Amino acid sequence: MYQTTLTVETHGEGTVRDLTAQVQAAVAASGCENGLVSVFVTGSTAAVTTIEYEPGVLEDLKRALSVVAPDNLPYAHDRAWGDGNGRSHVKAALVGPSLSLPVIAGRLAAGTWQQIVLLELDVRPHRKRSVHLTVVG
Amino acid sequence: MYQTTLTVETHGEGTVRDLTAQVQAAVAASGCENGLVSVFVTGSTAAVTTIEYEPGVLEDLKRALSVVAPDNLPYAHDRAWGDGNGRSHVKAALVGPSLSLPVIAGRLAAGTWQQIVLLELDVRPHRKRSVHLTVVG
Amino acid sequence: MYQTTLTVETHGEGTVRDLTAQVQAAVAASGCENGLVSVFVTGSTAAVTTIEYEPGVLEDLKRALSVVAPDNLPYAHDRAWGDGNGRSHVKAALVGPSLSLPVIAGRLAAGTWQQIVLLELDVRPHRKRSVHLTVVG
Repeated sequence: MYQTTLTVETHGEGTVRDLTAQVQAAVAASGCENGLVSVFVTGSTAAVTTIEYEPGVLEDLKRALSVVAPDNLPYAHDRAWGDGNGRSHVKAALVGPSLSLPVIAGRLAAGTWQQIVLLELDVRPHRKRSVHLTVVG
Repeated sequence: MYQTTLTVETHGEGTVRDLTAQVQAAVAASGCENGLVSVFVTGSTAAVTTIEYEPGVLEDLKRALSVVAPDNLPYAHDRAWGDGNGRSHVKAALVGPSLSLPVIAGRLAAGTWQQIVLLELDVRPHRKRSVHLTVVG
Repeated sequence: MYQTTLTVETHGEGTVRDLTAQVQAAVAASGCENGLVSVFVTGSTAAVTTIEYEPGVLEDLKRALSVVAPDNLPYAHDRAWGDGNGRSHVKAALVGPSLSLPVIAGRLAAGTWQQIVLLELDVRPHRKRSVHLTVVG
């Protein structure tokens, strides 16, 4: 069992960070040959998933998320708290904060065009997003 | 390795239960200092995710889910089975039944405003939803 | 700790494969009595989730995914790469590539009408989709 925490800086809504190399480095540091690595982002306005890290598809994903949580809608969260980030919370809950990937022969077993990404969904920048990595096995 | 099952009562579509304290209690009972806790809801009409447990944002999430699976649409599932809960199945499959969170120094490492929630999506109440918790590490 | 890889053939967009029996078989082969099984699909145009494996609800899910990523929209990914599968990438990132399920007394603890499924979202067939299973505990 090995744990480490990545600290990721984001510029607010729309920032997508490719974490694949850092997750692979943690797997190497753990010495794990076969097992699992769990990726978890703290906070309720960010999410993790896998996607091809290519500007076009990241733009397409952003558009798709705005179908379910459009910018120009009144949000009950914003009426209550005035944060202006009701849509951020909704998108984060839908995509989800966690991901588990297999480690096989000391390597992340993801596809060549399948990167592990942090989606910043909040309307404001976060200088220190915490992404916890746990390697088991 | 430690396992326990939470039994949660719901009033049907729209019930959202904050499970954070119960998951933290299971982590404490496990004696695990560093590892993972996996949260899994059985059944195909409920889901788990993390969100700020605040009435406004829960209402916003409900609205967002009804964009992809509106109430007033004919569902093939309902034509075949007459359950009237086609939309519940669709929402549950999209949000997903499982979540993994890190345990660091004996505590759940989630954000302060990031609660673990059970979303009841079925149109009828469930008196005994089972949520399985597995602590590893 | 036990790992195995399923190789699944798909006919392209719309193929949904019920993997439940194969995941249960892997759990049995592992000899694990209590723990977790992690399911992960490699590639950025497929996803895994749980759903009732019934034709009606699978059709309903397909329709719901096309609300966020319609067929007839121009995708930035397609403009850049000409793959014609921008929508596939978007849907895959939203549903997600991973799932963790509890193993209790040697059995998958999912609901009776809750099957583990691979969603092929790509526009072309994949003869050899890899789904990695990792049993821990």
